[in-house]
Amino acid sequence: MAELARPAATATADPANWTCPAPLRDQPVVVMGHGGGGALSAELIEQVFTPAYGNPVLAGLGDSAVLDLGGARLAFSTDSYVVRPLFFPGGCLGDLAVNGTVNDLAMSGAVPTHLSTAFILEEGVELTVVERIARALGAAAEAAGVLVATGDTKVVETGHGDGVYVTTAGVGLVPDGVDIRPQRARPGDVVIVSGPIGLHGVAIMSVREGLEFGIEIASDTAPLAGLVAAMLAVTPDLHVLRDPTRGGLAASLNEIARASGTGVRLQERAIPVPEAVANACGFLGLDPLFVANEGRLVAFVPRPHAEAVLAAMRAHPQGAGATVVGECVAEHPGMVVVATGLGGTRVVDLPLGEQLPRIC
Amino acid sequence: MAELARPAATATADPANWTCPAPLRDQPVVVMGHGGGGALSAELIEQVFTPAYGNPVLAGLGDSAVLDLGGARLAFSTDSYVVRPLFFPGGCLGDLAVNGTVNDLAMSGAVPTHLSTAFILEEGVELTVVERIARALGAAAEAAGVLVATGDTKVVETGHGDGVYVTTAGVGLVPDGVDIRPQRARPGDVVIVSGPIGLHGVAIMSVREGLEFGIEIASDTAPLAGLVAAMLAVTPDLHVLRDPTRGGLAASLNEIARASGTGVRLQERAIPVPEAVANACGFLGLDPLFVANEGRLVAFVPRPHAEAVLAAMRAHPQGAGATVVGECVAEHPGMVVVATGLGGTRVVDLPLGEQLPRIC
Repeated sequence: MAELARPAATATADPANWTCPAPLRDQPVVVMGHGGGGALSAELIEQVFTPAYGNPVLAGLGDSAVLDLGGARLAFSTDSYVVRPLFFPGGCLGDLAVNGTVNDLAMSGAVPTHLSTAFILEEGVELTVVERIARALGAAAEAAGVLVATGDTKVVETGHGDGVYVTTAGVGLVPDGVDIRPQRARPGDVVIVSGPIGLHGVAIMSVREGLEFGIEIASDTAPLAGLVAAMLAVTPDLHVLRDPTRGGLAASLNEIARASGTGVRLQERAIPVPEAVANACGFLGLDPLFVANEGRLVAFVPRPHAEAVLAAMRAHPQGAGATVVGECVAEHPGMVVVATGLGGTRVVDLPLGEQLPRIC
Repeated sequence: MAELARPAATATADPANWTCPAPLRDQPVVVMGHGGGGALSAELIEQVFTPAYGNPVLAGLGDSAVLDLGGARLAFSTDSYVVRPLFFPGGCLGDLAVNGTVNDLAMSGAVPTHLSTAFILEEGVELTVVERIARALGAAAEAAGVLVATGDTKVVETGHGDGVYVTTAGVGLVPDGVDIRPQRARPGDVVIVSGPIGLHGVAIMSVREGLEFGIEIASDTAPLAGLVAAMLAVTPDLHVLRDPTRGGLAASLNEIARASGTGVRLQERAIPVPEAVANACGFLGLDPLFVANEGRLVAFVPRPHAEAVLAAMRAHPQGAGATVVGECVAEHPGMVVVATGLGGTRVVDLPLGEQLPRIC
């Protein structure tokens, strides 16, 4: 599939040379990679959606927007969830639909408060399936401390859906003094990951393909707003937060590097890849840096605060495995490189699409 | 299809006797009618979603919720749009996805400000189709005075979608002193409809079924927030506003009657049914009261303000055809009746589903 192909030479030292590896106009139809959160998704946004909507708030399309509304600083975000299968080790569509949107809000430093849920049901799906997903959604909302405030249900004919799709939108309040966004990364920032990576993607793949890797790997799906609050209690001056979902850590770091015009340098040996994930990725020819997570965040923290923020993260259940993985540098602006164990470096580029379609 | 069947005896004088005509437990799978906005939809909400989420804000599930957030009164609403075909006389999926959600917000008296958009694209759909819909969405947002603030795109395999589905969520601010909700209908309220009914449903049906009714009938899809603002300028004390979409005027009035414990009495001859709609409905065996609208509202206005509100509506482009269609009464609580041209009355019950699936 299209999103498995990698661009031949997209990563160059000068971001001005970044080109879309598969120009939209050469490709008249939607391919799976357009939903993968990588270069094809970015291209669709830049060439189709942004010109169509054309307004300044859209700069952060795909993240939560922060709006000044009635005297409040409101974070607002949405995601559709089309994960296949609906149930997987560690969670289901219902959890994802809450945690994914809550985490998008939390990545702007917001305290999420309310969600909307819109279900697109396929005619013929068992009501018990809908009920299990709704209950998981309700439980996840309670665990994340948000209320489901409003909703909608539509039904489409058999063959025009896939059981259940859920779209959630969320709102939350951004505390005064907090200004967290990709553009704020600065050379010298310490890059921290909140725990082991790759679990969600490998969990989905294992159940979807019927693969076993000796040990059941469960998705890391979890709400991260509590962890973010613990970090903000140390300092409101966090520069960037991001949850590396579709496209994995590689996509998130590339987006931050591009948005801020800085470089990111990772230490390969510091990246927390669980053995089971490493084994599965080796077997399948995947790079763990590109595998989706649903309960992890990456933070760019000013160096003077890094140690205290790391300690606060490790004291929180969702950040117990937090670790420094690299730093933000002035060299190679817009690029992400990894210092390998052998003393060399390799470039980590923006994936074209997602290695695994319908991961969330 | 299931939603074409009508319950044998659902309308009784005592709302306590209202029963679900097709108990969920006797029906193990989702049917088209569960998305029709009628009794089956209500049953799904009451038996599946509400127990799963269990929280007080949910009382208004399906409408916009009004939240106290950071000192602001925030209206919050969502809808998925799965209309078939994507383009129809008078509009397309993109317009609907804006106007439907903007109107849901306006029905709480809110001034809509921002939308989120989440696209679920089917692999293989032409990018020009996506682009046309996005441009219509952008134009409709501009016309409605709202900004598209954030978004998401997912892609599903061919055979698991239908070209394009869009889910929008919206936020807006409710002015101080405004408290508009179905529970506030009171005997004596004057019931006003903002213009001719049935146009959206008949427009969709004509293009979907290839029927011609002598004259092209265009959807009434339009944003109603400006009209609501004009009404609120007369008095903040409007009791109920509702846009009669799925299930038509019949569904909206039944929901208001049930929520408020009052009765609604319509004058058949006063209901503005365009001749073309009447002809089409006659031909197809439909009741115009059950046909969807996408640019109309029904208002319950305290009698002392009714004349001035009606004048303000008629002075607004979206309310030029506004007319009094009936009143709210103490008799037959929870029921909607129509006084017919022959001097009798008939009961208008809550539809089981929508006469026409995927109308919006």
